[in-house]
Amino acid sequence: MQSIRIGTDPAFRYLLRLGDTCLILGQRIGEWCGHAPILEEDVALSNMALDLIGQARAVLTHAGRVDGRGHDEDQLAFLRNEADYCNPTIAELPRGDFAFTTLRNALLATLLKHLWQCLQDSSDAELAAIAGKAVKEARYHQQHAGDWVVRLGDGTPESRRRMQQALDSLWPYTTELFVPDAVDEHAHVSRLGPRWADVEADWLDDVRQMLAAADLELPAQAGRFRSTGRLGRHSEHMGYLLAEMQYLQRSYPGGVW
Amino acid sequence: MQSIRIGTDPAFRYLLRLGDTCLILGQRIGEWCGHAPILEEDVALSNMALDLIGQARAVLTHAGRVDGRGHDEDQLAFLRNEADYCNPTIAELPRGDFAFTTLRNALLATLLKHLWQCLQDSSDAELAAIAGKAVKEARYHQQHAGDWVVRLGDGTPESRRRMQQALDSLWPYTTELFVPDAVDEHAHVSRLGPRWADVEADWLDDVRQMLAAADLELPAQAGRFRSTGRLGRHSEHMGYLLAEMQYLQRSYPGGVW
Repeated sequence: MQSIRIGTDPAFRYLLRLGDTCLILGQRIGEWCGHAPILEEDVALSNMALDLIGQARAVLTHAGRVDGRGHDEDQLAFLRNEADYCNPTIAELPRGDFAFTTLRNALLATLLKHLWQCLQDSSDAELAAIAGKAVKEARYHQQHAGDWVVRLGDGTPESRRRMQQALDSLWPYTTELFVPDAVDEHAHVSRLGPRWADVEADWLDDVRQMLAAADLELPAQAGRFRSTGRLGRHSEHMGYLLAEMQYLQRSYPGGVW
Repeated sequence: MQSIRIGTDPAFRYLLRLGDTCLILGQRIGEWCGHAPILEEDVALSNMALDLIGQARAVLTHAGRVDGRGHDEDQLAFLRNEADYCNPTIAELPRGDFAFTTLRNALLATLLKHLWQCLQDSSDAELAAIAGKAVKEARYHQQHAGDWVVRLGDGTPESRRRMQQALDSLWPYTTELFVPDAVDEHAHVSRLGPRWADVEADWLDDVRQMLAAADLELPAQAGRFRSTGRLGRHSEHMGYLLAEMQYLQRSYPGGVW
């Protein structure tokens, strides 16, 4: 089935940014299913992935209505081209080791928690309702992933080394999260939701607290690197992720359970 | 685009078996492009992959005519379902390290060389012509990959250890190559081509010679494991390979250069 064409309306793009972050992160976390270091955590990660996919479903279904071209959640999830996915790059990076995965989960769950909190007051009643449910899940994700970051950061020399390495790798990708742009500005003015930059201070507070408890050092925010996934310009990993994620729907167009 | 349906005619299946072995091995070797340990070998592997894809193109184009459903090489390469690919499982195994890759290349190039040699006398003139060109390429592949097997097997303790490990991993998958079945028998009777089992003795001679020069130990042919890729029952790796390989054609149906 050919890829679908979607609109450029800023409200729609704002929703995609949110929904795609959940979708792509959920896809990456799902890769751990059957591979986590302990059984309990295998279940926890799979559940977290399912929560995120559930949030993506709700947001993408709603986004399809806003776009008004008759696309449902499955078409939006599986039939877009790479450049039409609006997740920040950090969500699509390969799963890495367990330290990398849990740290990314903690960083993004913290972001999502603050976003959902604000989104409960959205002028869009449907989005506000989605946020009311999602914020509870994100809060739990933040706590669960954060516990691991502390446990491993403040653990053995090897676990600490890996966690610090994960932090050094991931940190440059957090810059993108709070870069203001027209999509964010439109959401702010229309009271659809917060500019992502509006939650940066709260996010950083939470993250600093977690890293302090984990005895990890915040990398210097240096260098000019800035990822651009939210604008549809993705890393080299995104194509492979989509190939795998879209395969079934592209091979069996319109297939449903 | 929906997957295509193909026929079960034994001559067609015999051609698929051959063409898919080239196609899937070529896809795996192509993964090394930009990743080989030295530049020279990066080019050599990419060239080998291109030779194999070229052979696959020729055989699949011809197979499409034999099937008579109007499918061209691209449709046969990219729009079949997993169960309709007839390569032996050994071709689809993940690329592994350089030892694994070169040893697999050597084992399969040796097989293909002997097959192409016989196929030059095929009752199918088109196939005989393809074989006449392909046998030269396979001969070179066998020599090139075999040189590496000897160099690494008879090299440092680490390179030897890796090559022996590759041999132990790959060897059980060679059983499948020479299992007789109705497709092979039909090819033999119709003089389309050799039963693969017909070249087993020659293959084993070549392989033994190479392994002796590499100072590697042939594993005991024990265990009941027998892979079944030629029958369309593939390993868990095949779906991921196809997702990646088919992605472009499924996203842009009918796309050509």
